[in-house]
Amino acid sequence: MALLVPVAKFLGVMESDDSPQYTSDNQMKFPENYRQWVYLTTGFDMSYSAAGMQMDHHMFDNVFVSPAAYKVFVATGRWPDKTVMVLEARVAKGKGSINQKGNYQGEQIMGMEVHVRDDARFPGKWAFFGFDGGKTGKMVSATATCYSCHADHGAVDTTFVQFYPTLLPIAKEKKTLAEKYLTEIAAPEDKQPL
Amino acid sequence: MALLVPVAKFLGVMESDDSPQYTSDNQMKFPENYRQWVYLTTGFDMSYSAAGMQMDHHMFDNVFVSPAAYKVFVATGRWPDKTVMVLEARVAKGKGSINQKGNYQGEQIMGMEVHVRDDARFPGKWAFFGFDGGKTGKMVSATATCYSCHADHGAVDTTFVQFYPTLLPIAKEKKTLAEKYLTEIAAPEDKQPL
Repeated sequence: MALLVPVAKFLGVMESDDSPQYTSDNQMKFPENYRQWVYLTTGFDMSYSAAGMQMDHHMFDNVFVSPAAYKVFVATGRWPDKTVMVLEARVAKGKGSINQKGNYQGEQIMGMEVHVRDDARFPGKWAFFGFDGGKTGKMVSATATCYSCHADHGAVDTTFVQFYPTLLPIAKEKKTLAEKYLTEIAAPEDKQPL
Repeated sequence: MALLVPVAKFLGVMESDDSPQYTSDNQMKFPENYRQWVYLTTGFDMSYSAAGMQMDHHMFDNVFVSPAAYKVFVATGRWPDKTVMVLEARVAKGKGSINQKGNYQGEQIMGMEVHVRDDARFPGKWAFFGFDGGKTGKMVSATATCYSCHADHGAVDTTFVQFYPTLLPIAKEKKTLAEKYLTEIAAPEDKQPL
């Protein structure tokens, strides 16, 4: 037993606890370490409405997941309890330095959202939290459309695995894609263009 | 000493050795684990020539760095010997699933390049390797333009830290930006537009 304590302490320094933490007034503590988590994907100007977003700039969305949850997903095609995902929106820059065309990511963060699974805490298992650059964030009301949209269209357990290129093949192989999602992509009008 | 061996062995399981590995015929072994490395940034259709690339699709470029090198950069603003960076190019998809506008990343990988610092091995310290989906890749000739372009325009030690939004502020603070880069961005015609 004497051996185990120093090992656990040392590991605590190497890899911090990635499970969700909350304040006494039910805010979530921002996972400060998320840029060292596992990267899932980046979208560019993505919009779920045909009108798109009205912006005077382009935008990147980067998605990260807690390493322990990633390992479980790779092994099972499912997210475990205590999964934390971070969506980081960054302003896109165009011409700059030697870049002449296309876009790269600027330092300015436009938004930060967390999607967290905590079975004992949330009736619907998952919750969204918004962060405005602070160390804590408030939960998005469970009646907000992000919940129903993720529930209706998320490829795996209310998450948009269909946009995570390294995880989608795993979900296909493990047969963990949601029934609603499979029905949706089977409908002719929703078939993905090449 | 008896204590240290099990700790080191256990850590070996937690965090694999990220330093560059080569074959006997001087190819580099592909770092299979790179998607669990630290994410630096994503570009969209970036091009260093005004003509841009002639493609019938949009493209994302994701950049990852070995965790040990990342930690050194955060602490010092410089890359250590044995730094490995991976550039992963992915095809961009447009309308698909519930996405109506903008682009998300597809499963198809369009290219994979590695930039590696290995002071004892390469006369210029850094080298590029190209991978065509195989487990090993050949070194790009040291006379290729990628070397001179990175040397002339890289913000830190021949790397494009100017496009890595979380690292650029660190390099500024640590005053490790290359002289050539500072001269370049000070010239009026190269000033970055807002």
